[in-house]
Amino acid sequence: MTEKKRILSGMRPTGPLHLGNLHGALENWVKMQEEYDCFFFIADWHALTSDYEDTSRILQYVKNMMLDWLSAGLSPEKSTLFVQSDIMEHAELFLILSMITPVPWLERNPTYKDQLVQLSSKDLSTFGFLGYPVLQAADIIMYKAYGVPVGVDQVPHIEITREIARRFNYLYGEVFPEPQAILTQTPKILGTDRRKMSKSYDNAIYLSDNPENISAKVSRMITDPQRARRSDPGNPEVCNVFEYHKVYSDSESVAQINETCRVAQIGCVECKKIMAQNLIKVLEPIREKRAYYEANSDLVNDIILQGGKKAREVARLTMKEVRAAMKI
Amino acid sequence: MTEKKRILSGMRPTGPLHLGNLHGALENWVKMQEEYDCFFFIADWHALTSDYEDTSRILQYVKNMMLDWLSAGLSPEKSTLFVQSDIMEHAELFLILSMITPVPWLERNPTYKDQLVQLSSKDLSTFGFLGYPVLQAADIIMYKAYGVPVGVDQVPHIEITREIARRFNYLYGEVFPEPQAILTQTPKILGTDRRKMSKSYDNAIYLSDNPENISAKVSRMITDPQRARRSDPGNPEVCNVFEYHKVYSDSESVAQINETCRVAQIGCVECKKIMAQNLIKVLEPIREKRAYYEANSDLVNDIILQGGKKAREVARLTMKEVRAAMKI
Repeated sequence: MTEKKRILSGMRPTGPLHLGNLHGALENWVKMQEEYDCFFFIADWHALTSDYEDTSRILQYVKNMMLDWLSAGLSPEKSTLFVQSDIMEHAELFLILSMITPVPWLERNPTYKDQLVQLSSKDLSTFGFLGYPVLQAADIIMYKAYGVPVGVDQVPHIEITREIARRFNYLYGEVFPEPQAILTQTPKILGTDRRKMSKSYDNAIYLSDNPENISAKVSRMITDPQRARRSDPGNPEVCNVFEYHKVYSDSESVAQINETCRVAQIGCVECKKIMAQNLIKVLEPIREKRAYYEANSDLVNDIILQGGKKAREVARLTMKEVRAAMKI
Repeated sequence: MTEKKRILSGMRPTGPLHLGNLHGALENWVKMQEEYDCFFFIADWHALTSDYEDTSRILQYVKNMMLDWLSAGLSPEKSTLFVQSDIMEHAELFLILSMITPVPWLERNPTYKDQLVQLSSKDLSTFGFLGYPVLQAADIIMYKAYGVPVGVDQVPHIEITREIARRFNYLYGEVFPEPQAILTQTPKILGTDRRKMSKSYDNAIYLSDNPENISAKVSRMITDPQRARRSDPGNPEVCNVFEYHKVYSDSESVAQINETCRVAQIGCVECKKIMAQNLIKVLEPIREKRAYYEANSDLVNDIILQGGKKAREVARLTMKEVRAAMKI
C-alpha cells in the first residue's frame, strides 16, 4: 500500500492542449506524480455541459487529450489516467449527491453566472449545467482525494465539493474526507495576440504543433506596438515575445535580448526566430513522445483501459461504502 | 421475440402497499401483464428525492414492495420486475439527459410546486428533487416504452418525458420513441377516515394486514354521521363502508344492505362485519401468496436478481445506442 496522499484533477476534452494548459496545469501534474498518488481523468461528461449541441468531436478530443498527457510526461505507471465516462459510478454518485444538494448552493456559485455570460452564444440554461459542481463533487470525493490542484478560479467549486461532502457525512455518517484546493504558482503564458490563450481566440500554440507551425505562429506575434521600425528602440517590458523568452530561453539569452532590444541592436524578426527555436527545442521531447504514442495507438488504448480498471476498483469500493452508509 | 407492446411503470418504496395502491395501480398492472411486455420497477432512487434525510427503511420497503407485488399477482414469468438502483444505466442516462433539459421545463412542472407545498415539512429545495422528471424520463425511455400506465396527476411528468425524448432525438438522431400516458378508470377507495388513503394519514388498510387487523380497522370506520343510534335509518350514499361494499361484496349483498340500512333493519356493526369478512376474503389469495413468498425469501431475492439481469440487458443496449448517437 502506498502511503502517498491522493490527489485528483481532470480536464474537459474540448480541444488540443496548448502552452497555457502545459504551464497552467500539466507541468504541475507531472511534478506531482512524484509526491502524490495521482488520479487524472478526462472529463468527457463535463464536456457535455457546454458542448451538448455538438458532440461530434468529443471522442476524438478524448483520444488526443490522452496523447497530449502522455507526451507531456504523465505516466500510467505513476498515475491513474482514465476517462470519466468509463466509470459509470460517477453518474451514480452524481445522482445520489444531487438528492442532498440544495439548489441555492448551485445558483450562488460565482462561476455559474460568469459562465452563463461568457458563453452566452450557447444555451446553457440546462439542468446539467446548473449541476456541474455536483458532478465535479462526485468526481473528486469518489476517490477520497486529499487535494485537488486547481487554478484560483476553481476554488469556489472545491468549496461546494467540501460542503457537499460535509452534508453527506452529516446525513449518513463519515464517508468522505473534505478535499483541499492545492494552488500553485505557474508562469502565465498569454496567447500570441496577448489575450488569454484559448482555442476559441485562435491564438494558441499547441503541444501537437510541428516546428513549422510554431515558427509561423511566433512570426505573427505582436511585439512592442511602439516599435514601428527596425531602427526604433524596443521595450521588452510590454513585449509578449519577451515574456515567452523568459519561459523558453536561458537567462543569458534573456538578459542579452533585454539589452539589445532596448538599443535596437536586435530586430523583432530575429528575436522571434531565436525564441521560436528555443520554444521548439523545449517542446521537442513532447513531440517525440507524441510521435511514439501516435505510432502505438494500441498502447494508448490499453493505457485508457487499464487506467479505467484501476479507477473503477476504487470507485466500486467507495460506492459500496456509500450504499452501506445510506442503507440503500 | 415478443410482439407485445412494451409498457413501464414504477413505484417509490415509501411504505407497505394498501388498498388504494391495489385498485389504483396494481390490479391494473396485473391485467396488463396479459396484453403487454411489462417492465415494473421499484424506484428506490426516486424515494431519495423526498426521503433523503431518513433512508434507514428504504431497503426494507424495497423488499416488502416486491412481496406486495408478487402477492398481488405480478409475475416474474410474465413481466420484468426489478429495482431501479440495480441498473446503474439509469444514473448514466439521467446524467446525459440532464445536459439537454432546460431548467425552466422543470420549474414549470406543475407537480413540482405542488409537492413543495404538500411536503412542506421536508426540505425539498434540492437539485435532485428539481430533477425528478429527468430521472423519470431516463427510467421510461431507457426501455423504449410505448406507454406508461399512470394516474391523471402524473400526466404532466409524461409530457416532460416526451419533450426530453424529442429533444434528444432532435439533437442526436432518432433513438427514443415518445411514450404515451395510459390512463385507466379505477375504483376509488378512500381511507378508513374518508380522506385519501395514505400511510401518512394512518387511515390505510394494507395488503399485508392480517384478518384481525382488517376487522379492527373496519370496525373503526366512519359511517353515516347522521345515524346516531342503531334504530335510526341510515343513508348508504354518504357511508364510506357502503363504498367498500360496492367493491368487495357481491351485488346481491350490496342491494340488500342498501335496502336494510335505509330502514334500520341492519346496524353499522353488523354491516361492517359483513364487509370486513368480504374484504378479508378478497384479500385471502394475496395473503396466501405473501405467506408463500415470505417463507421462500431466497426465491424473492432471486426474482429481484433475475429481473435486474433482464432489465440490464435492455438498458445496456439502449445506452450503447445513446453513446453511438451522441458519438461519445
